[in-house]
Amino acid sequence: MKKGPTTDLNSNGEKEDHISKSQQLLNKYNVKIGDNVKLLSNKGEYTGIIMPRYESFNDNYIVIKLNSGYNVGILTENIINITSEKLSDTSDNTSLNLISKTDDPHNNFLLTKEIAHNSDKPVFPSSLPKILLLSTGGTIASKVDYRTGGVTSILNASELYSIFPEISKYASIYPEFIFNEYSENIHTAHWSLISERISYAVLHEQFDGIIVSHGTDTIHYTSSAMSFALQNMPIPVVLVGSQRSSDRPSSDAFTNLLGAIKFITKTNYAGIFVCMHHTSSDEIIACYVGTRVRKNHTSKRNAFQSLDYVPFALIYDSDIVCNTNLERINTRNNIAKNLVSKTSFDDRVFLLKFYPGFDPSFLEYFSNFKYKVIILEGTGLGHINKNCFPYLEKLIDSGIIIFMTSQCIYGRVQMTVYDTGRDLLDLGVIPLSDMSSETALVKAMWALSNSSNMKELVEIMKINLSNEISNTSPLIS
Amino acid sequence: MKKGPTTDLNSNGEKEDHISKSQQLLNKYNVKIGDNVKLLSNKGEYTGIIMPRYESFNDNYIVIKLNSGYNVGILTENIINITSEKLSDTSDNTSLNLISKTDDPHNNFLLTKEIAHNSDKPVFPSSLPKILLLSTGGTIASKVDYRTGGVTSILNASELYSIFPEISKYASIYPEFIFNEYSENIHTAHWSLISERISYAVLHEQFDGIIVSHGTDTIHYTSSAMSFALQNMPIPVVLVGSQRSSDRPSSDAFTNLLGAIKFITKTNYAGIFVCMHHTSSDEIIACYVGTRVRKNHTSKRNAFQSLDYVPFALIYDSDIVCNTNLERINTRNNIAKNLVSKTSFDDRVFLLKFYPGFDPSFLEYFSNFKYKVIILEGTGLGHINKNCFPYLEKLIDSGIIIFMTSQCIYGRVQMTVYDTGRDLLDLGVIPLSDMSSETALVKAMWALSNSSNMKELVEIMKINLSNEISNTSPLIS
Repeated sequence: MKKGPTTDLNSNGEKEDHISKSQQLLNKYNVKIGDNVKLLSNKGEYTGIIMPRYESFNDNYIVIKLNSGYNVGILTENIINITSEKLSDTSDNTSLNLISKTDDPHNNFLLTKEIAHNSDKPVFPSSLPKILLLSTGGTIASKVDYRTGGVTSILNASELYSIFPEISKYASIYPEFIFNEYSENIHTAHWSLISERISYAVLHEQFDGIIVSHGTDTIHYTSSAMSFALQNMPIPVVLVGSQRSSDRPSSDAFTNLLGAIKFITKTNYAGIFVCMHHTSSDEIIACYVGTRVRKNHTSKRNAFQSLDYVPFALIYDSDIVCNTNLERINTRNNIAKNLVSKTSFDDRVFLLKFYPGFDPSFLEYFSNFKYKVIILEGTGLGHINKNCFPYLEKLIDSGIIIFMTSQCIYGRVQMTVYDTGRDLLDLGVIPLSDMSSETALVKAMWALSNSSNMKELVEIMKINLSNEISNTSPLIS
Repeated sequence: MKKGPTTDLNSNGEKEDHISKSQQLLNKYNVKIGDNVKLLSNKGEYTGIIMPRYESFNDNYIVIKLNSGYNVGILTENIINITSEKLSDTSDNTSLNLISKTDDPHNNFLLTKEIAHNSDKPVFPSSLPKILLLSTGGTIASKVDYRTGGVTSILNASELYSIFPEISKYASIYPEFIFNEYSENIHTAHWSLISERISYAVLHEQFDGIIVSHGTDTIHYTSSAMSFALQNMPIPVVLVGSQRSSDRPSSDAFTNLLGAIKFITKTNYAGIFVCMHHTSSDEIIACYVGTRVRKNHTSKRNAFQSLDYVPFALIYDSDIVCNTNLERINTRNNIAKNLVSKTSFDDRVFLLKFYPGFDPSFLEYFSNFKYKVIILEGTGLGHINKNCFPYLEKLIDSGIIIFMTSQCIYGRVQMTVYDTGRDLLDLGVIPLSDMSSETALVKAMWALSNSSNMKELVEIMKINLSNEISNTSPLIS
């Protein structure tokens, strides 16, 4: 077992916690995270709220969220004094519109004071659109603590809302906590849970739109899942994530959330979308089609890219530009009964990335296991090594359905161009056009659960349900 | 068995060939592909060489390569007459510099006449740099036939050269055929074969540079393999591919090849590179670092992108702009003996892409099979579902080495940011910084074959050998 970088083991092999310099300083002045303070340093005086520490490898500073909204980091060695301040009565808390439907046991952090005195009697100005904000965890709902320097997912929707009061200008937000998971832990059951909650909201509640806060790692898999589970959505459902936790100065949590709110309140489109930074600055937020988006960078704020299409909408400070060429984006309507809600998934689908040096005999694994469908992530136009062909043939003969996508990410699988592709077609491998491998995986998991036989599954996979397949004419680029 | 689109089965289940309209027309006028002809149509008269048909779904035309170098397609219904023409003696064949070292059994096609009368007595103007052109197959060495409309890899290096006589202005080219494979069929043994041939050339022959023509599907895996197998290269080795076969009007075969020749003859850098279109027009060709490039589009001419770096060089019509900030690109030298040539690979490495819905129990597969190393392609900064942890722990305890890369493609794995990453580090999963999953796979296959134990393998994986890992300070983007 290798040791992690932020935890030491003592002689008994138990984890030992350290108290950081910055935490020692907070202890010394008897203040804690979330307190409104006046901080005197040899560089100046700051009034604001003590924030959880943002990500760094040293802990020599305290971060204060100023009333202006900006965060400032002050080196601990420069700090002369910190005193608690009473919260000002001039804050615009009276305009906050909150219902916290669930109690979060982790709600032991920051900035809940402002919520407290309002949450008993929420006021909903009838003039504002109503948005359900479902929190599922991830960075947008996480913060960094002073002990480990790591990010943990603790912040719930209520907290998020209290940090970003500006959103109350646009909409009445109804935050609700569904579950709290990093998105790498999200499984098919979570997709069902989110989809069922949304389905209920559409059929029985009167929201103008729904926002789902979600970890970015797999937000595009979830948006694909919801695009198949919830068809003919009468309202917009926008997943938002954030690449930097909401207490970091460079956080994109607020701008992405605000982008989603603007999209819901200022356009007339319905369906499943993902809202993330389009540029590394805060100037443009993109709203992507749920089946046409991918996380292409580990850390940048504009980590997401639209697959083959331009993003559905670009959200500027005061303008929203929509790409209205897409076939299957509906305008908003009140016909909730048209919603097709099929929220179950079957995980007997394997996503297999091919690579040079791949041992074809690995494919024998699938003849003994539960899998019903294999999504191949081939090379180029949809190829894999010819040595795999006999193994594929055997699997297909045994009833396993094999689809072909490309690891290129962009572009269309075209298996009639080269011998390899034609041979694979002959074997019965089924090309999935310009569907991404990730979307193909999710669609197959959905189709497997929602078709009565494999023939029907294949038919479902080949037709365009939610913009996952574009015009099937040969691609000329 | 599903039927392919270009082949019909007759009543006995045997394949039945069709003769296309265009082929019938060639038969009628007693001319064949590769013939120099005068073609009279009701639109005009054309003199040139009959080309293999370019990719299309109808076959209603004949393609002529004009003396200008452009191809023109003439509708069969417009054709009035075709007559054979004697090859003009004014062609600049005398400047061709060719040695064909191998006999290609498939050399039954096009344009070999020009080679024939020169190959007996090649002339090598001593003033021109000498380039070894190794042909391994792929689209750059392929063409479309009139029967099936599909692309097959037949064209060998000699043919390529004869189609693009302009390259003789820059260099004396020594074409040599190594093997003829679509690149999806390339395996570790092919990497060894190419590397050994190059190693021999560096040590025993006097070339100014080497070009390897290679299918695009896996050219980036091969360039990574060569970057580890051949370190301290004293000369430039440039892999070139083409997204459109060399007989298509839109082919990038020539421009990519010319880009590689210019890079070799006009700059002073050594190492392993890949030369492909930087833009969809012919204006800029990019020369990528061998370990830092990926095929990101199935069909576009500018399908390749540099990973995290800007491309090493941009090759304009008359200028070459190099990015000289990279640590490990050497300038050219004559110290062939410094070449570190370790050309063996061990394929007991599995590249496993994680996805939501992934069944952790799949990991048990590896406890019974040959694999020594697993390259995980996790989400985001390097994460996988926490339910996999017990299985990973078991594999690591059994001696399997597990590395983490990201399916994001761009950016760096950073496993100290979130709980999930820290837990994985605790388990002993080893992060590979900003190495792409594909490069990590190839490096592990190389390291497994070239280290005496697993500890040494881990050390090799963690250090930067060929720009596969950049500066390891925390990524701030």
